[in-house]
Amino acid sequence: MSGTVTVVGLGPGSDELIVPAVISALNQATDIIGYFRYIERLQNLQNQTLHASDNRQEIERAELALSLASEGKTVVVVSSGDPGVFAMASAVFEALEKNTGYKKNTKIIILPGITAILAASARLGAPIGHDFCVINLSDNLKSRNIVEKRVTAAAQGDFVIAFYNPRSKAREKQLERTFLILKKYCEPSRLVIFADAISTKNEKVIITTLEKADTNLASMKTLVIVGSSSTKEIIGTSYVYTPRYAIEEKN
Amino acid sequence: MSGTVTVVGLGPGSDELIVPAVISALNQATDIIGYFRYIERLQNLQNQTLHASDNRQEIERAELALSLASEGKTVVVVSSGDPGVFAMASAVFEALEKNTGYKKNTKIIILPGITAILAASARLGAPIGHDFCVINLSDNLKSRNIVEKRVTAAAQGDFVIAFYNPRSKAREKQLERTFLILKKYCEPSRLVIFADAISTKNEKVIITTLEKADTNLASMKTLVIVGSSSTKEIIGTSYVYTPRYAIEEKN
Repeated sequence: MSGTVTVVGLGPGSDELIVPAVISALNQATDIIGYFRYIERLQNLQNQTLHASDNRQEIERAELALSLASEGKTVVVVSSGDPGVFAMASAVFEALEKNTGYKKNTKIIILPGITAILAASARLGAPIGHDFCVINLSDNLKSRNIVEKRVTAAAQGDFVIAFYNPRSKAREKQLERTFLILKKYCEPSRLVIFADAISTKNEKVIITTLEKADTNLASMKTLVIVGSSSTKEIIGTSYVYTPRYAIEEKN
Repeated sequence: MSGTVTVVGLGPGSDELIVPAVISALNQATDIIGYFRYIERLQNLQNQTLHASDNRQEIERAELALSLASEGKTVVVVSSGDPGVFAMASAVFEALEKNTGYKKNTKIIILPGITAILAASARLGAPIGHDFCVINLSDNLKSRNIVEKRVTAAAQGDFVIAFYNPRSKAREKQLERTFLILKKYCEPSRLVIFADAISTKNEKVIITTLEKADTNLASMKTLVIVGSSSTKEIIGTSYVYTPRYAIEEKN
């Protein structure tokens, strides 16, 4: 008998920002797998078996999901935000690729969610109203060279840039180093935003500039946005937006 | 008396992918403004006044919204996808900035939605499992130079790239020109995906390569994804994903 693995996104924090398809999947699950902080967010469940695990155990969670599904279970793997943006979806496919035995029988479904950059953008106004890049600053799984190459390219392309996982105890200087690269390409007054726990009671937003930004204010969970050259605050309001039009630079 | 303008995202098409916060806002609205195709999607409304307009009238819609709100109305502006990603949120702030008279009284709220790249990513597997860029190929509001600069930077940074609005009757060659730039930096077998009408009954996905991709298959509404150097199909399945790890290039 063949089960399913459904990987879902719980959005940024508020239940009002979880799509109905995800709620249906949770209600129909026999087993729910996830980082314990995300499992804690689930409410009104009935007889589902909950498998909570610690951070950084993505591959173990993915393998458990595929294993339970191969026994015929209806498994849901929970991520915060969107499962496809630096979350559990890729881990499930990595595990699937490593274990060819799973492939034939396991149906995998991904259900999207409101990822941190969309939540932060909505809270601020419209900072990603123009072309943007999304970069994971964690170097657990990639080299610092690749991170630096992408930060440089994003700055050269004058993209709005959203940074996920900007800083951790193991990588205290990662965001600081990133800002040093950006300072080569961006003016000191370039807008920088730190967004935390958007849509929850602990929500916090700091609007500052590249020159003044204190990287110590960011944690692993902070979403950091660096504006493009046309991103601006509307004077007299707390709105930040990037216009849809782009002024051509003189080359 | 001061009203509100709430700009909401209706997601990619399925009602199962609209967040509850958006449904609440629609139910509480006195007036709903939007492109007529999006107004047509709304169901179960009661006494709301509907203001449907044609494509490309973003600023007119934004000004109408601010004007009605200044009369005390509870206005909702609808976008497809997410309102902050190449949709109505920026237009509303552009209108607000032009018309300083609105600023003092008008409260503007943005509610996020599932934007096309998240919907397409979920449908395919996990193609944006690593750093990615989102580029609007419409050159209505920006020069071709800026588009080309950003496409080049995105390719040089080895990002996964999502292209919105890749092609229209007025810009038949835009995607073809974009692919010509990408061919300078990417191998011929680089994965290319055309995703249309995801989550609706007209859903269509084409998985091809940069070498073989026929740009005539894209319309204005197609979401085009070009993988990074590590994006791959899982053999024997229809899943496309980008691993979380990145192999360092030799420089």
